[in-house]
Amino acid sequence: MTHHDTIIALATPSGNGAIAILRLSGADAIAIADSVFRSVKTGKSLQNQKTHSLHLGHIVEDKRVIDEVLVSLFKNPNSYTGEDVVEISCHGSTYIQQEILQLCLRKGCRMATAGEFTLRAFLNGKLDLSQAEAVADLIASDNEASHQMAMQQMRGGFSSEIAKLREELLNFASLIELELDFAEEDVEFADRSQFKALIERIGFVLKRLIDSFAVGNVIKNGIPVAIVGEPNVGKSTLLNALLNEDRAIVSEIAGTTRDTIEDEISIGGIGFRFIDTAGIRETKDVVESIGIKKTFEKIDQAQVVLFLVSGTQLVSEVEKMESFIVEVEKVRNKFPQKQLIVILNKIDEIGAQDLEALVAALKTHASQLIPISAKTGAGVEELTDALLNLINTGALRNNETIVTNSRHYDALLKAFAEIQMVKEGLETDISGDLLAIDIRQALYHFGEITGEITNDDLLGNIFANFCIGK
Amino acid sequence: MTHHDTIIALATPSGNGAIAILRLSGADAIAIADSVFRSVKTGKSLQNQKTHSLHLGHIVEDKRVIDEVLVSLFKNPNSYTGEDVVEISCHGSTYIQQEILQLCLRKGCRMATAGEFTLRAFLNGKLDLSQAEAVADLIASDNEASHQMAMQQMRGGFSSEIAKLREELLNFASLIELELDFAEEDVEFADRSQFKALIERIGFVLKRLIDSFAVGNVIKNGIPVAIVGEPNVGKSTLLNALLNEDRAIVSEIAGTTRDTIEDEISIGGIGFRFIDTAGIRETKDVVESIGIKKTFEKIDQAQVVLFLVSGTQLVSEVEKMESFIVEVEKVRNKFPQKQLIVILNKIDEIGAQDLEALVAALKTHASQLIPISAKTGAGVEELTDALLNLINTGALRNNETIVTNSRHYDALLKAFAEIQMVKEGLETDISGDLLAIDIRQALYHFGEITGEITNDDLLGNIFANFCIGK
Repeated sequence: MTHHDTIIALATPSGNGAIAILRLSGADAIAIADSVFRSVKTGKSLQNQKTHSLHLGHIVEDKRVIDEVLVSLFKNPNSYTGEDVVEISCHGSTYIQQEILQLCLRKGCRMATAGEFTLRAFLNGKLDLSQAEAVADLIASDNEASHQMAMQQMRGGFSSEIAKLREELLNFASLIELELDFAEEDVEFADRSQFKALIERIGFVLKRLIDSFAVGNVIKNGIPVAIVGEPNVGKSTLLNALLNEDRAIVSEIAGTTRDTIEDEISIGGIGFRFIDTAGIRETKDVVESIGIKKTFEKIDQAQVVLFLVSGTQLVSEVEKMESFIVEVEKVRNKFPQKQLIVILNKIDEIGAQDLEALVAALKTHASQLIPISAKTGAGVEELTDALLNLINTGALRNNETIVTNSRHYDALLKAFAEIQMVKEGLETDISGDLLAIDIRQALYHFGEITGEITNDDLLGNIFANFCIGK
Repeated sequence: MTHHDTIIALATPSGNGAIAILRLSGADAIAIADSVFRSVKTGKSLQNQKTHSLHLGHIVEDKRVIDEVLVSLFKNPNSYTGEDVVEISCHGSTYIQQEILQLCLRKGCRMATAGEFTLRAFLNGKLDLSQAEAVADLIASDNEASHQMAMQQMRGGFSSEIAKLREELLNFASLIELELDFAEEDVEFADRSQFKALIERIGFVLKRLIDSFAVGNVIKNGIPVAIVGEPNVGKSTLLNALLNEDRAIVSEIAGTTRDTIEDEISIGGIGFRFIDTAGIRETKDVVESIGIKKTFEKIDQAQVVLFLVSGTQLVSEVEKMESFIVEVEKVRNKFPQKQLIVILNKIDEIGAQDLEALVAALKTHASQLIPISAKTGAGVEELTDALLNLINTGALRNNETIVTNSRHYDALLKAFAEIQMVKEGLETDISGDLLAIDIRQALYHFGEITGEITNDDLLGNIFANFCIGK
């Protein structure tokens, strides 16, 4: 299906660059492009050119030359949208982009809405719905893990897994519905033990997919990690060590770090969002009390809490150890469900005996204790390993399908509930017509994921989250 | 000439968008692209494809799929740089852009320096130097006039004018140098009266080009206009009326405008930079004195001063007229060379008689007086006409060559000085060998503009101002 109206949008990021791309799609895309394009070769018309060809020329309006451009031609159905598509590669001045865009609008294009190119690709059967959704995820991906998940989904890994289950279930549904037609003869076309096995298997796969959402979700959004520590214990140096570059400001003056630094660092391909916070020692100072309140709020948002303390400070100030342990216990009691890692920093500046004593004193107070020197890098790898171990990246490593989309998660939960109903129905030997209803419901939820079953509201919601031009 | 090293850079603006383009140029561009590209058609190799063709496939590293991409192929010499060029159109995620970039670097590309693609285009004779410089201007152009000038320069209008003069001059230079070879025979190969006419003509053209720089420069950079006026006289409403959109915040509370608003507005295709300032009334308040100092600084930077006053205020507060005239005279005396336009605003809220009286009282105190209503739009067109009349846009309208580049301006000035020397030499009948030296000097400066005469420092300076990827 080619849409009658031809849409246009800027496909590259806005702003000035060397090149910008304007993309047209629809029945008149080539004709409209032709009406504003003058090839460097006299008499060349885009209409007569082959698909997947490139043409140098100028965008002109009457006698006015707007730009020298390269035009890419993709002919229906061999294009992203499945329609005729023209991409105009112009000089990346915002002014020029706008002039060409406005000219094409005057020639009969209309502005594309967010995600409309991908919506058309879906409607024309170039992508299923889950693949279309992955396009937006792919563009938003900012680390190896989220990229890999989006790529896998876009290439249809998830869809094909769902589609396969759906097809097998559909076969049995047909057989059971056939039995209903012969209800009076009491035949069984669908082998009940085979069917039970299938339902078991589907339930198992659904369970795995549903469980994968927890890890998929953190990978997609990054894992929030709160770093708690007083000024000058080496928070910025630690972040730099993790970053492997000098991005945060590091100095010897206590409190150089700004109120909130949130740094996303990719460790082993997983995005970790480090939220810097102040310490939480007891105080009567109003300003500091506000600081402690803020620290607690930030810890509340985090999945992991890194409690950073300076080894040299613990050695030189004896009372420090006690107050530090009080602080750690306070966080532990307030947030018993959070992963708490105590990091003993600056171990390069203290002796081996002191280190041993400190480790002994601290180790009972945290889930994990990791001695490091952020400055020399000692122990930093143990820390990154510990962070990676906190999330179950097994599925990711094994290239299994991971669900990252909450819409899919919802549909999977509903499908799973229906499958449980079918399973119970089989066990209690309910009538075929009741069984058929539950199976149809499960099939419906499968279809929601890949887009066999859809409606305008759903599509509107999904594509509204896309950028314009995609 | 194809460079042996293959360069790569992101050609689209940085940030997330639907599409990003990575551009490779050099001897190994196609081979490197081939080594990371897997076509959707099995066995297809980019090396065997035609120039100006498009190919769908995946960027892969070993088994890992990084993205689904479209590859555009341009074969030497039919490309922007004149070398083999590959453009990879990938999904516009910063992560993906970086992954592909890094992969290509590992495969043997190196990062392009700023403007290096255009430098190669120049070195390979695809553009002359003035055209290459116009590419950067084109990308930076943000209004019709600067765009038109850059486009004209890029298409070679300016270069061809210079080249034509240079060629004619070169012919005469050859003849005069030929005379030197036959010095003892006292022959004249070069007709002196024809030569004088040519020198006159060249001098005339150079003078026009040199004069055009003044207008070219303001068009390129926008014309700074200071708006002086106390709170609540309608500055923001005026800017909005000029903008034809509600971009600035307008309210009835005096002083809503932030300390400095600088709005660039395109009027008749020319960019005007409006610099908002406070009033400059006499005061003993320290803070206000600082404000007045700032206002004077801003006026100093402007070419045009708009003095805005509220008609309703002048009518209701009798002493206001006197203090306003004092202010206007103060600016006039301090900046006698600035164009000063008094704008009498809010004329929709005063009677015809009052208006007449105000106009009579004010008109002697400014170069121009324009009564307007920013709210209803009355008089706004007169104001925009007045602003356009302040700059000589005749050349622009007549599509004449306008010099916008200060390097060209310098070379033209030097060439003009040499041509004056030649002219004087002809008039005083100096010897052919001295004449030949001056002509050679003039030719040298012509050659500097188009790049026949160049050096690495000069090229380095020019292309350093480009963005990377162009």
